[in-house]
Amino acid sequence: MSKRDIGELLGTFAMVFCGCGAMTIDEITGGAISHVGVAITWGLIVMAMIYAYGEISGAHFNPAVTLAFAVAKKFSWRDVPKYIIFQTIGAFLAILLLWFLFPESKSFGHTYPAENFPPIKAFVLELILTFFLMIVIINVSSGSKEIGTMAAIAVGAVILLEAMFAGPMTKASMNPARSLAPAIVSGNLQHLWLYLTAPFLGAILAVFTYRFVKIGD
Amino acid sequence: MSKRDIGELLGTFAMVFCGCGAMTIDEITGGAISHVGVAITWGLIVMAMIYAYGEISGAHFNPAVTLAFAVAKKFSWRDVPKYIIFQTIGAFLAILLLWFLFPESKSFGHTYPAENFPPIKAFVLELILTFFLMIVIINVSSGSKEIGTMAAIAVGAVILLEAMFAGPMTKASMNPARSLAPAIVSGNLQHLWLYLTAPFLGAILAVFTYRFVKIGD
Amino acid sequence: MSKRDIGELLGTFAMVFCGCGAMTIDEITGGAISHVGVAITWGLIVMAMIYAYGEISGAHFNPAVTLAFAVAKKFSWRDVPKYIIFQTIGAFLAILLLWFLFPESKSFGHTYPAENFPPIKAFVLELILTFFLMIVIINVSSGSKEIGTMAAIAVGAVILLEAMFAGPMTKASMNPARSLAPAIVSGNLQHLWLYLTAPFLGAILAVFTYRFVKIGD
Amino acid sequence: MSKRDIGELLGTFAMVFCGCGAMTIDEITGGAISHVGVAITWGLIVMAMIYAYGEISGAHFNPAVTLAFAVAKKFSWRDVPKYIIFQTIGAFLAILLLWFLFPESKSFGHTYPAENFPPIKAFVLELILTFFLMIVIINVSSGSKEIGTMAAIAVGAVILLEAMFAGPMTKASMNPARSLAPAIVSGNLQHLWLYLTAPFLGAILAVFTYRFVKIGD
Repeated sequence: MSKRDIGELLGTFAMVFCGCGAMTIDEITGGAISHVGVAITWGLIVMAMIYAYGEISGAHFNPAVTLAFAVAKKFSWRDVPKYIIFQTIGAFLAILLLWFLFPESKSFGHTYPAENFPPIKAFVLELILTFFLMIVIINVSSGSKEIGTMAAIAVGAVILLEAMFAGPMTKASMNPARSLAPAIVSGNLQHLWLYLTAPFLGAILAVFTYRFVKIGD
Repeated sequence: MSKRDIGELLGTFAMVFCGCGAMTIDEITGGAISHVGVAITWGLIVMAMIYAYGEISGAHFNPAVTLAFAVAKKFSWRDVPKYIIFQTIGAFLAILLLWFLFPESKSFGHTYPAENFPPIKAFVLELILTFFLMIVIINVSSGSKEIGTMAAIAVGAVILLEAMFAGPMTKASMNPARSLAPAIVSGNLQHLWLYLTAPFLGAILAVFTYRFVKIGD
Repeated sequence: MSKRDIGELLGTFAMVFCGCGAMTIDEITGGAISHVGVAITWGLIVMAMIYAYGEISGAHFNPAVTLAFAVAKKFSWRDVPKYIIFQTIGAFLAILLLWFLFPESKSFGHTYPAENFPPIKAFVLELILTFFLMIVIINVSSGSKEIGTMAAIAVGAVILLEAMFAGPMTKASMNPARSLAPAIVSGNLQHLWLYLTAPFLGAILAVFTYRFVKIGD
Repeated sequence: MSKRDIGELLGTFAMVFCGCGAMTIDEITGGAISHVGVAITWGLIVMAMIYAYGEISGAHFNPAVTLAFAVAKKFSWRDVPKYIIFQTIGAFLAILLLWFLFPESKSFGHTYPAENFPPIKAFVLELILTFFLMIVIINVSSGSKEIGTMAAIAVGAVILLEAMFAGPMTKASMNPARSLAPAIVSGNLQHLWLYLTAPFLGAILAVFTYRFVKIGD
């Protein structure tokens, strides 16, 4: 267990605890935080954790981001499984702690499509959201690391704005580890498949687009 | 099709998809995002796309900005039509994707004056909004490029605050490409003329003001 | 009329047009922007104008700030009257333009104490608000100039947060020019005296505190 | 009384006056500021005061942060009592001024667990909140000083987001001095013990975690 692994675990833990915590507290208080407040929480905790762990682990906190960096040849394939495992452990620890604190919650911030929104469209929307996220990440990163003021502000802003506008339709996950843990703990597995697939596809599509633009002229 | 062109297309696509997407989802959910949330979405997607494409294309994403940079002799007149075409294609692709995802929407974020607000005043307000936007852009840019933390934060902030305070009167377009696409797709062409003219005039007025101040003493 | 004077005029014009415009539009639409939206507008327009005019004029936009810089021996006394005059002209032009656009408004963002809040306490609160504002300005400025990312973000943040928390009690003016113009145009002169005095005292008190801390050890 | 001490006093004074002031004004106006507005106020005043006093005192403004820096061997144990005293004086001056301005308030922003939230869980949540806060502070600081754009934005963001999502459960204190003053002045001492202990434990736990990660490989 290297310090990079612990960085991914702690960063993902903090991100999921605060983000899903905002959704959980908003649920059990009948809306005390508001949709705008939940979206701001998600964006700022990602920004803060990039500041804290960017230089240590690269601040992925997301299996789709880690895989996409590997596809882009900026991250070692050998380290992909370890990163994904520690991200997933961090997410589960966060949800278990929320479960201890707020057992009356029925969702712990789990992700699902809005009632009248067909799952296939939710799949497309999650794919696009992760595409935009990864486009920004790969353009502002140094190698596979999200480091410094520019990366922190840019990536935090994308998380915030996508949670803001797409939250009502799909909860704006963009992250398989973030979706897996509350689905398992709350027992809501119905639409989990789309959150475990669309982010990977969107992030990889961003890598190919990035390459296409870079080669360009 | 150079990489600069693709940058303008992708950046405008992301900006219009998220911004008009916020307005569309707010419409079909009966206000789940709120006016404040819509304004934040607009500002942050512009900021994020400047971070992503500022060094590649200059991050105009707006025909009025491109034309104004040409008037300011900071951008080649020869490239103006190409930029405007790719920005417009990006905006249309975004609106068509919103149409596929949310066919029940009647507006797709199209722009129009408030009921009791005369179109001629809407014209004046859009002109002033774009004037302020271009004043900031031209003062924080390097040549015709919006690059780095300063430009991204400053320009994103102007978009956010103008969408915030002027949104209820004119939807705060400041951008002919952003207004054209939802007007065509939703069939709401009534006030389109003002959104296709006022931003150009406001942006050019900012260039002359900038020159006047710069020559100054 | 030097370019510094024009910078102060244009920056104050933009600041008052957007800030008081937000209050005016919130008034005539029955709350479409919300208190949070108004505070965000004030903070971000100040931030954006510091980016745009910081290097040209120092981005004071406020007679109390200009006077305090002179007291701190960082700004020439000879230039104080000119700066105050151009700031005031900028504010009046902004309010007159709001009057043309929204003649139905009764306030144009004019400042006054809340109903149950005694004017003397409003005086104290405005003094404290301007004290905090000037403490931050003088600590982040280069000489008498608010320049760069640090000054823009710090000063914009103070304006935003003070408008946010103190707005309901005094409208959080902190600026005699910003209060004078809407008071004259809307004919609401009752409490104007306190907004023309408290900000000067608060800003000067900040200068003495700053000197006291700096000399320190 | 060195200038560092005055910096801690003034910074904590401003932070508590604005943050608890937001809660007080929200209380006496029946919600004019809103929960989102209160959280934004807390985050931005911390950010602004780091800009103002980071280079002078290190901008702790919090006994738990000061103690944790001493445990981390980045701050002299000899100076810990002085720092805590001046932070506490600053907090009391702020609450006394709020008491003068708004005597009708019953709380002055005092901290307490939500009705159905057991104090022991409030203790755990405050511990976690301060843990995240100190993790970010120690990773972005230079020695024991929070200096510059990166520290100001990162630490301000953590305060903002934790006030946002945890405010409804515990008021998100994370700071014994900030909790002590309003408890004493408003006479609400019931749950004070947890706010005087959990932040110290959380901050020290962050220091050990930081060391564990740093040593790492």
